[in-house]
Amino acid sequence: MDTAGLDALLLTTEPEFRYFSGFLTQFWLSPTRPWFLVLPRTGSPTAIVPEIGAPLLRRTWVPTILTWPSPRPRDEGVSLLVEALSGLVPPSGRVGLPMGPETTVRMPMADLLTVQTALAPRELVDATAVVKSLRMVKSEAEIAKIRYICRTASGVFDAVPELVVGGQSLEDIFRAFKVDLLRAGADDVPYLVGASAPDGYESVIAPPDQRPLTAGDVLMLDTGATFDGYYCDFDRNFSVGPASAAAGLAYDTLFRATEVALERTEVGTTCSELYRTMRQVITDDGFASGNMGRMGHGLGMQLTEWPSHTVDDDTELRPGMVLTLEPSVTYGDGAGMVHEENVVVREHGLELLTGRAPERLPELRS
Amino acid sequence: MDTAGLDALLLTTEPEFRYFSGFLTQFWLSPTRPWFLVLPRTGSPTAIVPEIGAPLLRRTWVPTILTWPSPRPRDEGVSLLVEALSGLVPPSGRVGLPMGPETTVRMPMADLLTVQTALAPRELVDATAVVKSLRMVKSEAEIAKIRYICRTASGVFDAVPELVVGGQSLEDIFRAFKVDLLRAGADDVPYLVGASAPDGYESVIAPPDQRPLTAGDVLMLDTGATFDGYYCDFDRNFSVGPASAAAGLAYDTLFRATEVALERTEVGTTCSELYRTMRQVITDDGFASGNMGRMGHGLGMQLTEWPSHTVDDDTELRPGMVLTLEPSVTYGDGAGMVHEENVVVREHGLELLTGRAPERLPELRS
Repeated sequence: MDTAGLDALLLTTEPEFRYFSGFLTQFWLSPTRPWFLVLPRTGSPTAIVPEIGAPLLRRTWVPTILTWPSPRPRDEGVSLLVEALSGLVPPSGRVGLPMGPETTVRMPMADLLTVQTALAPRELVDATAVVKSLRMVKSEAEIAKIRYICRTASGVFDAVPELVVGGQSLEDIFRAFKVDLLRAGADDVPYLVGASAPDGYESVIAPPDQRPLTAGDVLMLDTGATFDGYYCDFDRNFSVGPASAAAGLAYDTLFRATEVALERTEVGTTCSELYRTMRQVITDDGFASGNMGRMGHGLGMQLTEWPSHTVDDDTELRPGMVLTLEPSVTYGDGAGMVHEENVVVREHGLELLTGRAPERLPELRS
Repeated sequence: MDTAGLDALLLTTEPEFRYFSGFLTQFWLSPTRPWFLVLPRTGSPTAIVPEIGAPLLRRTWVPTILTWPSPRPRDEGVSLLVEALSGLVPPSGRVGLPMGPETTVRMPMADLLTVQTALAPRELVDATAVVKSLRMVKSEAEIAKIRYICRTASGVFDAVPELVVGGQSLEDIFRAFKVDLLRAGADDVPYLVGASAPDGYESVIAPPDQRPLTAGDVLMLDTGATFDGYYCDFDRNFSVGPASAAAGLAYDTLFRATEVALERTEVGTTCSELYRTMRQVITDDGFASGNMGRMGHGLGMQLTEWPSHTVDDDTELRPGMVLTLEPSVTYGDGAGMVHEENVVVREHGLELLTGRAPERLPELRS
């Protein structure tokens, strides 16, 4: 904050609030109430939250908790927030608020404008870089949580060929997979998307439908399960009956693209280098890249976090960064495939957090 | 939109986008990419979305889909959005964006400012009222989905006394409850919070911990499970062994407060009247209201929606509104209790969507 010239940070979203406070609740699903955490450059944080949140927030380390009876649309925490910031930031000062890529401000826009006007001449400035630089590098405690949920989900994926057979609907498969994840130790399964289609699939973000698994399909399940507020994010592919030549080749290419990335990545590698490494394998094999716009990303408290493995993200990898490797290809008439692993950057290369996908596309009984 | 003087609506959040398009995916959990839906006052909608979303979006009724390769932080859909809005809205026109209570704008603030500047002299104005007035009143198709998930969760709650006994930890109980909900037909269980504490509980939004259920506790589970993108939102209370006098009285008061609300509510009743009806029972019985700030709210595509049963929400109830009735009390030294049912407003009073809670606090084996 010194370097960025910020007198205070104002945080409004679930991961930002939780990262600095330890406050974990699913209540953020309700859009009714805003929550504010103010971190001054010196001194301790102040939380400004609806009364309903105070009992749980008092279990965290945050020493100052201001509350209002919410919902109260005519003053939804606004006057308390203005008062707190006015006391902490001099009139010539700057309040940092994440406003850049992959951020949002979680409060009504009309209220934000009111706060901005009331704080003038204090400036609201972008603080994405401050929050991003901290959150991109995980502590060992964070890595342990992510490793746990990656291993847990890997075990459940390994059992899929014993449980899933042709004829089952995607809805039934998704339901059974979530149950197995919970029983294996996941706290929640906020994210499970996938597809099953001949030779491969086009959409990688669809909910399940009632179409039965059919011989010749490639089934893909992609899950973000959580443990203590931390995500895994990876998928696995399965052939329903023997794989078609196209699906087998696509899988082989994606497996090798990942393998090369696992071998060649080290501290200081940039995300764009990592992208080009994977893309080279894909284009050498005559495939086109998929529609995902990147070949992996950060993860942690959110399903996806900075950085992105794209052609122009020049973020240098540092020890402790947790990332996905996620090459994808398209082929034929709207078919495609994506392959994903989760890793953590170490002093000497990458540590795999997921159990490595099988070298050949695994087969389900059709 | 005519009445509000809007030339186009700009929608950026999951429920807003889904309400007008039918586009359902859990991919919104990833904060990386913004999604834009533009509804002109006349003519058909335009979706401006990341390429990854196009295959799934083409299955909806939205006729015009513009895409960009995302993530692309230097132009994350901004130029496409400006071009589309500039073509649909005359320079003297107004673009409506929900900016009021219970809304957020889901895109980076810096990008929103860029869009605002590029669109000038077109104005960005608050469109909360337009979206709210539509979404508050549910269609029969929406009500059927909510009824299904309410009934499903009611059945699972009914079975709790057969499954839960003293000594189990909240973590184990939560996990088993989620599994049962999925097996009973819920698509997902995005929300499960609760507590177990002597005589009653203070926090109503906490995740589970490892403390064992202890004789004399009141256990509360509050779930927002979903079916086809629609939520139930209600809780149930249980006494671990025989209830204490205080817990029994609190439960009785909350049951009667709800009963009175069920009997007296009709079309045209305001939310504040509903609030006062329930509060009267609570204060007549010598209790104080809880820390929740309201005694119920709307629900549907989100766990909580407008309106709120508060002292000053004068929304008049209309047929098709789906609501929670959610009185709460505090008593003793930090004990409390909340009781919740889901209803739909009909021409002649309220229809209960949940299976009514038992008249007496149900008892679990200690």
